[in-house]
Amino acid sequence: MNSIADAAARRTAALAARYGRAAVPPAGPWNDTIALLLNHRSVRAFLPEPLPAGTLETLVAAAQSAATSSNMQTFSVVAVTDPARKARLAHVANDQAYIEQCPLFLVFLADLSRAQRLAQAEGVELVNLPYLETFLVAAIDAALAAQNTVVAAESLGLATVYIGALRNDAAAVAAELGLPQGAMGVFGLCVGHGTGTWEVKPRLAQAAVLHRETYRVPDEAALRAAYDAELAAFARRNETTAYTWTERVKNRLGRLSSLNGRDRLRGVLAGLGFPLL
Amino acid sequence: MNSIADAAARRTAALAARYGRAAVPPAGPWNDTIALLLNHRSVRAFLPEPLPAGTLETLVAAAQSAATSSNMQTFSVVAVTDPARKARLAHVANDQAYIEQCPLFLVFLADLSRAQRLAQAEGVELVNLPYLETFLVAAIDAALAAQNTVVAAESLGLATVYIGALRNDAAAVAAELGLPQGAMGVFGLCVGHGTGTWEVKPRLAQAAVLHRETYRVPDEAALRAAYDAELAAFARRNETTAYTWTERVKNRLGRLSSLNGRDRLRGVLAGLGFPLL
Repeated sequence: MNSIADAAARRTAALAARYGRAAVPPAGPWNDTIALLLNHRSVRAFLPEPLPAGTLETLVAAAQSAATSSNMQTFSVVAVTDPARKARLAHVANDQAYIEQCPLFLVFLADLSRAQRLAQAEGVELVNLPYLETFLVAAIDAALAAQNTVVAAESLGLATVYIGALRNDAAAVAAELGLPQGAMGVFGLCVGHGTGTWEVKPRLAQAAVLHRETYRVPDEAALRAAYDAELAAFARRNETTAYTWTERVKNRLGRLSSLNGRDRLRGVLAGLGFPLL
Repeated sequence: MNSIADAAARRTAALAARYGRAAVPPAGPWNDTIALLLNHRSVRAFLPEPLPAGTLETLVAAAQSAATSSNMQTFSVVAVTDPARKARLAHVANDQAYIEQCPLFLVFLADLSRAQRLAQAEGVELVNLPYLETFLVAAIDAALAAQNTVVAAESLGLATVYIGALRNDAAAVAAELGLPQGAMGVFGLCVGHGTGTWEVKPRLAQAAVLHRETYRVPDEAALRAAYDAELAAFARRNETTAYTWTERVKNRLGRLSSLNGRDRLRGVLAGLGFPLL
């Protein structure tokens, strides 16, 4: 096989792992960075060994290089390595053991407190801070930064997993980390040397997610049936269950108990300094 | 210069461009992917030439490879290339001309409507859909997917810029794109062949953004003074202004008019099917 054919085979294999063999999208441009992105998998087991010196600073440089709305930089990161603190944060997040295992646990903050301190120093009022829009800017800033962190970490051979369950009790996280009013942990991110075998998880076919010019609902019954079969097969190989995607969505969104307290998030945010006008 | 020294010099130059020479963080691990991330700049001028065949599908594959909360995949993408539609969307976003220039304008949606259709097909009620938490999951899903899109595009030599100003009138965007209830354009993303010279924009020093173990407010007056000088110099070189960061934050957050209607976002979202309980 020549090298062009070899590259094309690798591209097809990567797309098949991501979508299943029956839903591979048309071939487009490709390179090593795109292969890295396609190869992402969330890893939920870590070795205890610490990260090489300077890794945190490199990851944060990648995070800060992401776009940020109007360059306001309304996010911050708390890097947690203390085992006792990780254990307490893990407890907020349904005791997910890998939070304790990973050598570096990053908490990404929507952080309007820095702007608030700027306003105090300057003797001005920042009247836009209390709005839902400004919180959303901060949460999106945090998410863009975090995704760059994930890409940088994976490029270094490290493994990651996002921890949305910190929002189960955002007030407890704020207390644990000593956050000022106007700062809130949007999610956590475990970073470390992964262990075990973690397969790329298939996603919905592009036809289910990508719309052209306007939103037109595709034949979702067919797309969902195909994806349910794909994900059930993934589950049999990796999780000793055979839940379909349909079942997972119903479980996750159909019972208030699945929110683990996050149904109270709006009130908790108000208490942390985000009235969301 | 040998190749190791050469690589170290490139790393230092990249960090100096991102932070200014006085605030370069400690040297850590480095590679071409991290160099790509550090080299990001938002580009606001595009050539009209279309993208190579398959580019959209490759970008969407990268987008869907990002982590998504509980694998729910609560985001969608609308790919807009029609000039008239781009012009109408640009009008929502303060007539930013590059939205019309770029050959591909992606609108990233927080999309709970797919789950809602699943619920209808299955004859169940998804009681968690109306909560702020679930909207936040969808918005973060969209942001993680979008950032992977940016990284993939830049790896292909393409340029991008986020367009948060679509939220100036989220109802108009929904009408333009024919969105169902439960779907909302979180932001847009211009993609194309960039033109002109765009310098890496300096960010706040890591000491301002990165906290260790707990949140401790650093000497922000000193950090901000240094950054104000850095950003004013950037502005003189690139924008024929000399606004400091402090001035920009005050202008952006200190006047309700700077929200361009986004102070009404919460009510608009309720009308689009997001009551944010």
